[in-house]
Amino acid sequence: MIRVVYKVWLDRGGKAFGDGPYDLLKGIEQTGSLHQAAGKMGMSYSKAWRLIQTMEKRLGFILIERKIGGPSGGGSQITSKARTFMRRYEKFRAEVKELTERAYQKHFGSLRR
Amino acid sequence: MIRVVYKVWLDRGGKAFGDGPYDLLKGIEQTGSLHQAAGKMGMSYSKAWRLIQTMEKRLGFILIERKIGGPSGGGSQITSKARTFMRRYEKFRAEVKELTERAYQKHFGSLRR
Repeated sequence: MIRVVYKVWLDRGGKAFGDGPYDLLKGIEQTGSLHQAAGKMGMSYSKAWRLIQTMEKRLGFILIERKIGGPSGGGSQITSKARTFMRRYEKFRAEVKELTERAYQKHFGSLRR
Repeated sequence: MIRVVYKVWLDRGGKAFGDGPYDLLKGIEQTGSLHQAAGKMGMSYSKAWRLIQTMEKRLGFILIERKIGGPSGGGSQITSKARTFMRRYEKFRAEVKELTERAYQKHFGSLRR
C-alpha cells in the first residue's frame, strides 16, 4: 500500500531542531544525564554535546544546565525554556502528522493498492 | 530567523513519488522527451529511465509512453494516468506546504529571532 512519509525540522543557517535533538533532550529530561541520554541513542557523549551546543547557538537559548551535587552526584537537566520548547514541538509534530495524513487521504485516498 | 523545513514523499517499499520524480515528469510533459527532461535536471538518460521504471513498479501504473513519428520523429509523453496523478500531487504538495507553515506559526510563531 502506498503511504505518505515526511520529515520536518526547524532551520536557521542549518538544522536547528528536529526529531533527533528532541529525542536527546527527552532522554536528558528522563535520565537527568547527557551521558545516559546519548548512550540510549547510540551516540557518543562528545557528539551529543556538540549537537546541544549547535542547537543552542541556532535557537538562541540555553537547552541544558549542569545539576550540581545531590545524591546522584550531579548530571544535566534541561532548562525551563527547553521544556517549554519541547512541549511546543510535540504539539507541532503531532499536528503536522495529522494534517499530512489528512491531505494525503484527501488527494490520494482513492489510489488503488 | 528560524524557519520550518519539510520533505514529503510517497512510499511503497521505497520511495514511490516525490519532488524529483515530479520534476522529471513535468519536464517530459513540457519537452515531449525523456532525454531532454533528464538533461534539464542534470541527470543521465539511463538514470532517468531507471527512475521512471522504479516509480511505475511502485505506483502500479505506467507513467510514460513512446510517441512514435510525427514531425519531431518521436519522443516520450506522459500517460493520462500520470497527468492526473501529477495534478493531484501538485494540490497535495501545495496543501502540505500551507498546513505546515500554519502549524509552525501556530506553535512557534512567538519565537524571537
